[in-house]
Amino acid sequence: MKKTDGGITAPAGFYAASAAAGIKYQGRTDMAMVFSEKPCNVAGTFTQNIFKAAPVIWDRDIVKGKGVGQAVIINSGIANACTGEEGLRICRETADAASRILGIPADTVLLGSTGVIGMQLPLDRLVAGAKVLVANLKPDREAGNQAAKAIMTTDTHEKEVALETEIGGKKVTFGGMAKGSGMIHPNMCTMLAYVSTDAAISGTLLQKALGEIVQDTFNMISVDGDTSTNDTLLVMANGMAGNEEITEENEDYRIFYEALNEICLHLAKEMAADGEGATKLMESVVIGADTKENARILAKSVVCSSLSKAAMFGCDANWGRELCALGYSGVVFDPMKVEMWFESGDGTKKIRIFTNGAGTDYSEDEASELLSGKHVRIISDMHMGKESATAYGCDLTYDYVKINADYRS
Amino acid sequence: MKKTDGGITAPAGFYAASAAAGIKYQGRTDMAMVFSEKPCNVAGTFTQNIFKAAPVIWDRDIVKGKGVGQAVIINSGIANACTGEEGLRICRETADAASRILGIPADTVLLGSTGVIGMQLPLDRLVAGAKVLVANLKPDREAGNQAAKAIMTTDTHEKEVALETEIGGKKVTFGGMAKGSGMIHPNMCTMLAYVSTDAAISGTLLQKALGEIVQDTFNMISVDGDTSTNDTLLVMANGMAGNEEITEENEDYRIFYEALNEICLHLAKEMAADGEGATKLMESVVIGADTKENARILAKSVVCSSLSKAAMFGCDANWGRELCALGYSGVVFDPMKVEMWFESGDGTKKIRIFTNGAGTDYSEDEASELLSGKHVRIISDMHMGKESATAYGCDLTYDYVKINADYRS
Repeated sequence: MKKTDGGITAPAGFYAASAAAGIKYQGRTDMAMVFSEKPCNVAGTFTQNIFKAAPVIWDRDIVKGKGVGQAVIINSGIANACTGEEGLRICRETADAASRILGIPADTVLLGSTGVIGMQLPLDRLVAGAKVLVANLKPDREAGNQAAKAIMTTDTHEKEVALETEIGGKKVTFGGMAKGSGMIHPNMCTMLAYVSTDAAISGTLLQKALGEIVQDTFNMISVDGDTSTNDTLLVMANGMAGNEEITEENEDYRIFYEALNEICLHLAKEMAADGEGATKLMESVVIGADTKENARILAKSVVCSSLSKAAMFGCDANWGRELCALGYSGVVFDPMKVEMWFESGDGTKKIRIFTNGAGTDYSEDEASELLSGKHVRIISDMHMGKESATAYGCDLTYDYVKINADYRS
Repeated sequence: MKKTDGGITAPAGFYAASAAAGIKYQGRTDMAMVFSEKPCNVAGTFTQNIFKAAPVIWDRDIVKGKGVGQAVIINSGIANACTGEEGLRICRETADAASRILGIPADTVLLGSTGVIGMQLPLDRLVAGAKVLVANLKPDREAGNQAAKAIMTTDTHEKEVALETEIGGKKVTFGGMAKGSGMIHPNMCTMLAYVSTDAAISGTLLQKALGEIVQDTFNMISVDGDTSTNDTLLVMANGMAGNEEITEENEDYRIFYEALNEICLHLAKEMAADGEGATKLMESVVIGADTKENARILAKSVVCSSLSKAAMFGCDANWGRELCALGYSGVVFDPMKVEMWFESGDGTKKIRIFTNGAGTDYSEDEASELLSGKHVRIISDMHMGKESATAYGCDLTYDYVKINADYRS
């Protein structure tokens, strides 16, 4: 398994395109399409928010129905959430228009939207944009990169990943793209993320793998604690690698699972690191928990704490805030047993800051220097058992407030 | 029942004092004492955080034990939380020293601390400070005001309240003081708050009233979602008003309950409005919920949303964020039935922004003007039942980040 340069178009048979449809932004692309030569088995996980955006409802019906998709159309600028019946009609008409141009069934056209909640999408611009997208579809690196750029909102850079592995003697490739970077607090995941692969795998196993992987990847990141109305993670597998289709949990499945996990973890961490206004990636590792679920809750509580996030921005070793976040997580533990360390992202520096119910006599200067890095790890050993989990977040900065006090302007 | 000018010393027999003990701050007072001529029945509620600060453990033992208190000593600057056995020893020795000077049992001396987590308190300065406090105890308005100032950390102003009512033909007075203003996300309450009254009421009924009242007052405010290690709310009743002791839930109890509720609500709202960096009070009213518990969860979800809080700072009518917060609260409801309004704090302006699953055609200018006020109300009618709840929070501002990126310096 090796990471390669590339994105959503890396696997065989995948095309992408972008277009500037003028949906809300001016002077930038705001629509993207991903298209596979052959129909794909498609799996997905979606927001748990009661207010599900119209494209989430549309995609969920496809994933839970035939589970087959061949194209995805995504727009940025307007989320098509809280838009009532009219929002659903716009989804239907967009898919219908794309299906006619592409010559594929409308119920294999998946949709994704991100941006302002509550505004209606301009259907005429969407349809005109879809025509441009189809005309520009290309299977190359550049087309994938342009698609990854077109789906951004407040992201500072596009998020792409690709990797190769071998399954049953055949080279299999995975590609992915995603966008953050606010309203990020996954339950399912929170954001838009798309993964392509030319592996052959049954729809059932694809959904099973994704459902498990999302728990320790996208569901373990948080930027601001707000679970979006639009969160969507889709995986499309078109089988063009020529491997024997994976239909049981054998060695081929294990390799596929590991590769998909790697892709999802990469995109999830990138999303956390590029959270709105973020200057650093905050990684919370919990070890020695009694159950896996408790490990996850504890790890996430730390990256969700506004006070811990603000202290990280200030490179202030105010570790009481991380302990405090463990303490109000709802998990029961013995506070006298907890040990805590700060560690630099590359693992070269590690400082024990708390043990036996009180702080150690660590050097504030060393701690502050460690915390000034772009990637900081907080390790909490609960000394209760053997379960562990890792959560990813980012610091809370002036820019987060700036971006969100005036998002719609 | 009428509010009067005054604070913790308003009821008969209550004294207060402040002192500059140099615990952490320089050039300001950082210790306060409240003392009652006669022993009080005392009730309290405390943080649910697993990491309970040493003074919380100390006070809880008193409240759950004899339930009698006569003095409270509070310091700001250092929280005495996550301080292990040494932190508990400092509590014991402080109470012992005060008990000798005051000539009262050590287990009637309550303690409170607020400030940085993880540092040890300097015992010698605490004891020296306690001597100054006792020497300066006075029953007047000014002494109460100085005590309210001494317990502040990042608060921009002291928080006091007093009111008078009549129980069984006797004038009964209540006083209160509190401090916020960060790490405010109550479960119990989050903060330090002290209420005095000269009413005569049994310890059992005092605790019962407080336990109920806290649910709809202090437990309904949030500044930043972080439940502190030190949250403490104490009520001391010394019986000096001369009313017949309230020992059952009769008309006297009802009047007492209403007055105590009014005091707690006043202090809770002041705490939310003076949240760290806040420019406005954000009030989330949920009506038409199916259960009281769901009404509370929904109302709090809105004031806890970082994105909603940042939009409020920007006076941006980005109502999708409030709906989104209702949607991820965990409460099940029909999104098509929800109605939402923005209302000015004084109730003179009200704009319906959402109904039938989509936004209304309200005027953005009018909405933005309404949101520019110092007190904004968001009303959500779930159309599911008859239960309601109100939560209080504040906007998320540059100053919140500034205060918390560099709190310890």
